[in-house]
Amino acid sequence: MATSSGHTIKAFDEDLDRLRALISQMGGLAEHGIRESLRCLVQHDLDGAAKVVEDDKKLDALEIQTEQSAVQLIALRAPMAADLRDIVAAMKISSVVERIGDYAKNIAKRVPLLDKSHAIEPLSLLPEMGRMATEMVHDVLNAFIARDAAAAEQVIERDRAVDDFYNSIFRTLLTYMMENPGNIGQSAHLLFIAKNVERVGDHATNIAEMVYYAATGDYYVDRPKGADSLADLD
Amino acid sequence: MATSSGHTIKAFDEDLDRLRALISQMGGLAEHGIRESLRCLVQHDLDGAAKVVEDDKKLDALEIQTEQSAVQLIALRAPMAADLRDIVAAMKISSVVERIGDYAKNIAKRVPLLDKSHAIEPLSLLPEMGRMATEMVHDVLNAFIARDAAAAEQVIERDRAVDDFYNSIFRTLLTYMMENPGNIGQSAHLLFIAKNVERVGDHATNIAEMVYYAATGDYYVDRPKGADSLADLD
Repeated sequence: MATSSGHTIKAFDEDLDRLRALISQMGGLAEHGIRESLRCLVQHDLDGAAKVVEDDKKLDALEIQTEQSAVQLIALRAPMAADLRDIVAAMKISSVVERIGDYAKNIAKRVPLLDKSHAIEPLSLLPEMGRMATEMVHDVLNAFIARDAAAAEQVIERDRAVDDFYNSIFRTLLTYMMENPGNIGQSAHLLFIAKNVERVGDHATNIAEMVYYAATGDYYVDRPKGADSLADLD
Repeated sequence: MATSSGHTIKAFDEDLDRLRALISQMGGLAEHGIRESLRCLVQHDLDGAAKVVEDDKKLDALEIQTEQSAVQLIALRAPMAADLRDIVAAMKISSVVERIGDYAKNIAKRVPLLDKSHAIEPLSLLPEMGRMATEMVHDVLNAFIARDAAAAEQVIERDRAVDDFYNSIFRTLLTYMMENPGNIGQSAHLLFIAKNVERVGDHATNIAEMVYYAATGDYYVDRPKGADSLADLD
């Protein structure tokens, strides 16, 4: 793993590497959680869903560990400029990744609320949307490890595809609800799940902006967005 | 405004007070945004809603200012123990308050999507729910300023009432959708708005846990919650 610019204090570089490794570990768990919760949703796997809920505790513990390591590092080494930005970014990113884990947990908690017998067609689209969103998370965390602002920008651009996917699923679900009023309760849960997955893409974008700032020292300037995207609405 | 425990360096106390004042200012804006967005929703006030969206930029700018002040304070003064916890809490709280502002913006963005002529009854419940949630935000930020762990705990206990309110609105909206399939699109927007308001209460709870940690040095131990609350699901 590359470190910033070769500090004279080797121990500090090792501390930074450990912090980055914690973030990678959290990212892997969060990505797995999202994909697994959607698999459980489609296959109505109640045991699998319960495990996703349980596994979220690991992320909570890792977030606390990351924050403590970051604060210690700041207090002990008094880092400046790029190093300080990097440590603050690690702290903020770990908190966003923990929230992505919360979405996985929330999706998993809805699995038992969905009736196995009522297969709702739009449901089959969700895992593909989840794959797109978790790949963004994966790539943006790699960009953080590599301090690669350009790679972070590329992730931001990909959020539009996730948003389009969400808008399409939203409209499909509304149509489905109108045609099947008896399934409105079930469909409402899918609306929220689709929104959760869309939020994963948003969070990957937030992380990308943090990576951009950590790597360059400049705040990322917002891309122009379509004015009427439903995905803009949390 | 009271400072922690009388530092020998007066400038440091002043810096901390400035940081707390920034958080208070952000909190006031976020509370106003939520209440105002719900007023605009009920009164179908498009101009007012546009102003809520525009005003959210102030919160974004204040969050950046808070983070920069906090990082400078850590780098220049190398605070330890309770002071360091306080500064890190300020940084994290400002980011949560900024997200509360995002919910106000999102609610405001949905105002034009709701048809003025179709008055949906459950809509009238939302401002009261918003009042409960924003009062939690108000009180938890006062607890932060006062470093009052007990006051923070009281806020956490009040989240249950917001959750109950949300569950009731959720079920009312589903019933309404079944009885009025032609209003499903409008009702779906209200489902998300109710969820946004419920999330404001969750965020107040998150802040309360941060205040508890900053004030005591111990992590707050989660209260037992009802297992089947829909409000548990983001």
